[in-house]
Amino acid sequence: MSQFLRAKYAGLEAYTPGEQPRDKKYIKLNTNESPYPPSPAVLAALGREDLADLRLYSDPEGKELKEKLAGLYGVAPNQVFLSNGSDDILNFTFMAFGQDGAVFPGLTYSFYPVFADLHGVPYEKVPLKEDFTVDVAGLSGRGKLTVLANPNAPTGIALPLDRVEEIIASNPDHVVVVDEAYVDFGGDSAAALLGKYHNLLVVMTYSKSRSMAGARLGFALGSSEIIEDLEKLKYSTNPYNVNRLTLKLGAAAVDSDDYFRANARRIMDTRAKATQALRELGFTVPDSQANFLFITHPKLDGGEFYAKCKEKGVLIRHFSDPVIAQYNRVTIGAEEEMETFLQVVQEIMKEEGL
Amino acid sequence: MSQFLRAKYAGLEAYTPGEQPRDKKYIKLNTNESPYPPSPAVLAALGREDLADLRLYSDPEGKELKEKLAGLYGVAPNQVFLSNGSDDILNFTFMAFGQDGAVFPGLTYSFYPVFADLHGVPYEKVPLKEDFTVDVAGLSGRGKLTVLANPNAPTGIALPLDRVEEIIASNPDHVVVVDEAYVDFGGDSAAALLGKYHNLLVVMTYSKSRSMAGARLGFALGSSEIIEDLEKLKYSTNPYNVNRLTLKLGAAAVDSDDYFRANARRIMDTRAKATQALRELGFTVPDSQANFLFITHPKLDGGEFYAKCKEKGVLIRHFSDPVIAQYNRVTIGAEEEMETFLQVVQEIMKEEGL
Repeated sequence: MSQFLRAKYAGLEAYTPGEQPRDKKYIKLNTNESPYPPSPAVLAALGREDLADLRLYSDPEGKELKEKLAGLYGVAPNQVFLSNGSDDILNFTFMAFGQDGAVFPGLTYSFYPVFADLHGVPYEKVPLKEDFTVDVAGLSGRGKLTVLANPNAPTGIALPLDRVEEIIASNPDHVVVVDEAYVDFGGDSAAALLGKYHNLLVVMTYSKSRSMAGARLGFALGSSEIIEDLEKLKYSTNPYNVNRLTLKLGAAAVDSDDYFRANARRIMDTRAKATQALRELGFTVPDSQANFLFITHPKLDGGEFYAKCKEKGVLIRHFSDPVIAQYNRVTIGAEEEMETFLQVVQEIMKEEGL
Repeated sequence: MSQFLRAKYAGLEAYTPGEQPRDKKYIKLNTNESPYPPSPAVLAALGREDLADLRLYSDPEGKELKEKLAGLYGVAPNQVFLSNGSDDILNFTFMAFGQDGAVFPGLTYSFYPVFADLHGVPYEKVPLKEDFTVDVAGLSGRGKLTVLANPNAPTGIALPLDRVEEIIASNPDHVVVVDEAYVDFGGDSAAALLGKYHNLLVVMTYSKSRSMAGARLGFALGSSEIIEDLEKLKYSTNPYNVNRLTLKLGAAAVDSDDYFRANARRIMDTRAKATQALRELGFTVPDSQANFLFITHPKLDGGEFYAKCKEKGVLIRHFSDPVIAQYNRVTIGAEEEMETFLQVVQEIMKEEGL
């Protein structure tokens, strides 16, 4: 830390991204990336002219992409906000709408408290219920910015849309954010409720089902007034926040929506098989509607299991939070990757005499 | 505006980017983009595998690119900060280092007061001297975050390095930011002073001399402690802020540094010719060390001149600030573009009976 840093940021605890080790080649099941490349249309979208045109600024309005996303989700273009990854949107959300504090589940995306602390937004965590589902009553009518990841991370459990609606309807004077990073793997999107609630903001990303984590593209759908607020913050920090190539690739991805839906179904099939196999090996695995599983075994220590997997060439995600120290989050990889992972699990169990 | 927006942002006046009209094809001399494409090495840098790898997150550390930039500027990799355009860095700078307020020239990049307002940083504008040069004494020893664009915008005038050093040396307890977006067109970089001053932050961009405005890549050079502070804010807002393609293209650009230096020299040659031609037509044109000219004519109204140029297919930049309403900022385009612009100027003068 320098001597110059504003005092209020001195104690800030930044978010820790999943590890990206360079020491050897791992099967990467730790950051919820897709095992499949973007669609052929995306791979073919960039010509030499697009690269030559990098000399020009990107369209700060992202007009073409907004129109395509609006068409896909049945909203008006001025109900779409584009950003450099969905973290960017979540950051703006805490900044813009946190004046009465924020509330979110006790176990969820660990970036929420970081954003809250950064913007001086007091927050309350509502513990999950014993079965790891979200406490709808506890999150309802709180008179605060309410943030719900659905499906939730790192559990993978989705809340049915009617329960999500209860939370939205109970907070008419505050924004309810539904963070749907993982919704395409079996959840029901709250985008269907946009016509009904002016306080709803649905946040989505290209990083998971659309296989474009490295392109950095997120978007949000909401009332035109909420989107206008987000645009104001964007134009006060970084108007050209999405680069030219990503805007073009993002549009090509909307045009090949079927390809991504088919990939999501493949991942859901692989997930079903992996869930069953792990349960047969004695793991506890909540039903996941996301592209990852949240697993624990009564006879295997969570931290040791993570370390042994890594030693054997498979990276999974372990969290330092003591409440979930016995769990690991495992991204659904390609069929072959999951078969290798299951072999590794069996080896570890054998070594432990299980 | 929605009913939910935090009260302190209600009055925020966002930055207005240069217009990007779609009604017809203009000669674009309004946003200081380069007329030349990125280097052949940049155009050839992306293969099909890079696009397939978009399924993976970008390296949040940007290790390879940081090492290359560190080599180019003779600093350590932990003295380099990467971001999604240099606006992103400036935003973090006001956020991180503005606790005692900020000071910058009265006429400069119009985004500085927007960042200051956003982060609740009180600021003072020190008027330029009558010849539009920066008031060094007025900016020295102010005990505040001090921000100097050098060369300055929209004047194009550069401050010699020894005068920049005076400002840095006079503010040992506060960060001095030297925003060098335009330095490659003839200015002297304060990067040469990094070993000497721990309070110096030099901000640079790929958007101008490197012909990559659309790739969104900025970087800053400073003491490892200042860079650590900026990293902390980045990891608290958007850790993967630079996408995979831009990281790769940015590295290819460092490898072809000579190409960009040669382009900058071409632009400087074109600038010299345009300056002379405009002066011969009666325009007042300060000596520019940037890729634009700041021009006025005693017998032509600034706003009307802008409108007539636009009507004739040439976009230049006019500012609403009454102090400079008689001026226009004209980006240095390619030789042919500047010849067309000069023809347009002569037509307008003829129509005005000059």
